Amino acid sequence: MDYDVILIGTGAGSYISAVRLLKHKKKVLMIEKDKFAGECTNYGCIPSKALIEMSESVHYLETMPGMNMNYKLDMKEWQKWKESMITRIRTGTENLCKSLGAKIIYGTGKMVDKNHVSVNNQTFSTEYIILDTGSSPVKIKGIDDVYYNREILAVDSIPEKLVVIGGGYIGIEMATAFKKLGSDVYVVEMMDRILPEIEEDLARSVDKKLRSLKVNIMTGSKVLSVKRDKKYKVSVENHDDITADVVLMSVGRVPNTGDLGLENLNIALDGRFIKTDEHKRTNVDNIFAIGDVSGAPMLAHKAFYDGYIAAENILGNNVIVDYKAMPFVVYTDPEISFTGKATEKSNKLPVLANPRSLTMNQMDGFFKLYYENDGTLAGAGVAAPRSSEIIGEMTLAIEAGLTMEDLFLTIHPHPTVSEGLKDASDING
Amino acid sequence: MDYDVILIGTGAGSYISAVRLLKHKKKVLMIEKDKFAGECTNYGCIPSKALIEMSESVHYLETMPGMNMNYKLDMKEWQKWKESMITRIRTGTENLCKSLGAKIIYGTGKMVDKNHVSVNNQTFSTEYIILDTGSSPVKIKGIDDVYYNREILAVDSIPEKLVVIGGGYIGIEMATAFKKLGSDVYVVEMMDRILPEIEEDLARSVDKKLRSLKVNIMTGSKVLSVKRDKKYKVSVENHDDITADVVLMSVGRVPNTGDLGLENLNIALDGRFIKTDEHKRTNVDNIFAIGDVSGAPMLAHKAFYDGYIAAENILGNNVIVDYKAMPFVVYTDPEISFTGKATEKSNKLPVLANPRSLTMNQMDGFFKLYYENDGTLAGAGVAAPRSSEIIGEMTLAIEAGLTMEDLFLTIHPHPTVSEGLKDASDING
Repeated sequence: MDYDVILIGTGAGSYISAVRLLKHKKKVLMIEKDKFAGECTNYGCIPSKALIEMSESVHYLETMPGMNMNYKLDMKEWQKWKESMITRIRTGTENLCKSLGAKIIYGTGKMVDKNHVSVNNQTFSTEYIILDTGSSPVKIKGIDDVYYNREILAVDSIPEKLVVIGGGYIGIEMATAFKKLGSDVYVVEMMDRILPEIEEDLARSVDKKLRSLKVNIMTGSKVLSVKRDKKYKVSVENHDDITADVVLMSVGRVPNTGDLGLENLNIALDGRFIKTDEHKRTNVDNIFAIGDVSGAPMLAHKAFYDGYIAAENILGNNVIVDYKAMPFVVYTDPEISFTGKATEKSNKLPVLANPRSLTMNQMDGFFKLYYENDGTLAGAGVAAPRSSEIIGEMTLAIEAGLTMEDLFLTIHPHPTVSEGLKDASDING
Repeated sequence: MDYDVILIGTGAGSYISAVRLLKHKKKVLMIEKDKFAGECTNYGCIPSKALIEMSESVHYLETMPGMNMNYKLDMKEWQKWKESMITRIRTGTENLCKSLGAKIIYGTGKMVDKNHVSVNNQTFSTEYIILDTGSSPVKIKGIDDVYYNREILAVDSIPEKLVVIGGGYIGIEMATAFKKLGSDVYVVEMMDRILPEIEEDLARSVDKKLRSLKVNIMTGSKVLSVKRDKKYKVSVENHDDITADVVLMSVGRVPNTGDLGLENLNIALDGRFIKTDEHKRTNVDNIFAIGDVSGAPMLAHKAFYDGYIAAENILGNNVIVDYKAMPFVVYTDPEISFTGKATEKSNKLPVLANPRSLTMNQMDGFFKLYYENDGTLAGAGVAAPRSSEIIGEMTLAIEAGLTMEDLFLTIHPHPTVSEGLKDASDING
């Protein structure tokens, strides 16, 4: 065999798999048709977090009493910084894989049979294959001349007027960031609320804040057409037409299965995803699938975990997936995070009772802990500044089977947002 | 008896004790000679975090490529906001105590005997007493006409030139914040490094950053005199005199034991602190001491914990202190945090390998996990943005006896600073 393992796609999951396999002396080929490190690093979570971070600081200073702040944002310059920052991450991961001995080929990888993969007119034999080709935005016929995540994160100026079609987490993150950076923002969502994939009370806290920021939210609304001339004209059922500079389409993502040669091998699907078992193995026993292409939730950290599981199984360790506590974050205002599951019993503390949040001039949101009858922590929903950084603690607590009392008795530094979790765990007075 | 429990001082620890006792139907009197809620809320951690937060946002935007930012800071206006923010916290805690039935008297409480406390010429009988009178800045004779934490946090303009005497955590937090808000800052420290109370590698990352910000750090240096005319003139051994607008003295804090009537009761001391056992009980069995007055570390969250221990013991529950993992945070750049203990084995990951930090344009620092031979997590030292929010997770893990592998197998959301902890826990490849 030319290789022990060939990975098609080099995103979050592949990177983790490859490093693990390489450290255990496996011969690894990684095939990438675009940029090393995938959608999240190059076009998704990383650039969006950078933009959101800037928008939050601007908004915080603009609304801080006593602070009189003016700014001019040269987005072309900022994009250069963003690219250099991403390049640092991308080359860091690529160089680590190379230094551990990975072979990397740029091109479109396709499975010829269960032990052969072709790329750039070469064919390589391999014992195992890992498919990690990610996902792409849903495109709607007739209204596809719009911006998606890649384009919106590459703008060279802040649009005067932005219409976001789809009020899921990507749309709402971008709506919040661009509003804070000065855009007039419209959100059109077919469902009866924004963030339909998120717990309702978390979504409500974001909806409330967006409305106070004067974002125009149209729920239960259907886009009829999007026409592009110099500007966009967006027709929404039962609303006046909206003229806009930029239209972001964010109505979901679909797995990238097109070029893989799945048909050659009768690889089973689950809807549009590649079907995998609890070892992340497809119905063909030496072929694994990880990350977005292998099923929801489409999250980079789920891909990391999948990558670990696949690598361990290839290394002969019988490890299975356990999504008991899968954190989910939306970088909005307030920042909302969820992990574990909702149970009947819960305890809720308002952000107003968290001094650290007040020092940041933030007063919206809550800490909600879900627990079993015996006091075991089952889930957490947090709408609070920097909640992304504290939901890991709740995930760890749930995975370890800890109780509300364990959390309550753990000293948390003061003043922090994290102590809101401790305070919310005080169910015995 | 007039009361079940009289608390002298209403700071962090008292608040926790009082609420717990009140919820269990105890009759409680709280005596306060200054402002309800103590030093931390009114003059310490809360206003300092608000100032630091603003300074960080200003510095972040000032150094972000593409962002051209100008600001004028009206500190008088900002101070009004700060006061309203603090008032919200203070009245929130005071109103909760009142609503649960606490009697609150403003005045200087003094113990007459072990069951009687006087205040404002009245004397009340009580079954238990809790002493929580906090601490004050060390003042040096002859150079006491300077600023301390209260004054520096109440300035109505940003000083042009600031000299900080004492490079401990209060001094260094203020040096960083005022430098970022435009002051020319000098730090004079007698020891051979700043932050002498902190792990050396954590302190070094702050020292490096402060020097890159052009803060003038003089270690191993002794202040000979401080003279005040219109401006201050500070003489430092082996250095040129420094002319400054403000001199902050931050060379330590001493417990407030002066007015308590300790001498009436022969209450034992430990150095200058009130001596307590593991139940937070003094040598007089119905008198407890908590918070700064009862020993180091002088931290609000240690006081919270003390307050809980004292209340539980008064309620008849035999609970003892366990400072196995006591987090410690310094809100500097990078933000540094420590919990647990240092062991021989450790694993270190640079912040450069943490994508979320890079999205914030932060590249300095590290995640360091200490562990026992069997893999049990023992301690953590983190120099990274928002490390204060993730050190709670490590504290919980240590208290629960979790291992490096437990941490590694817990899914952390991407991209976050917290996933740096997970990545640093990967010791088995």
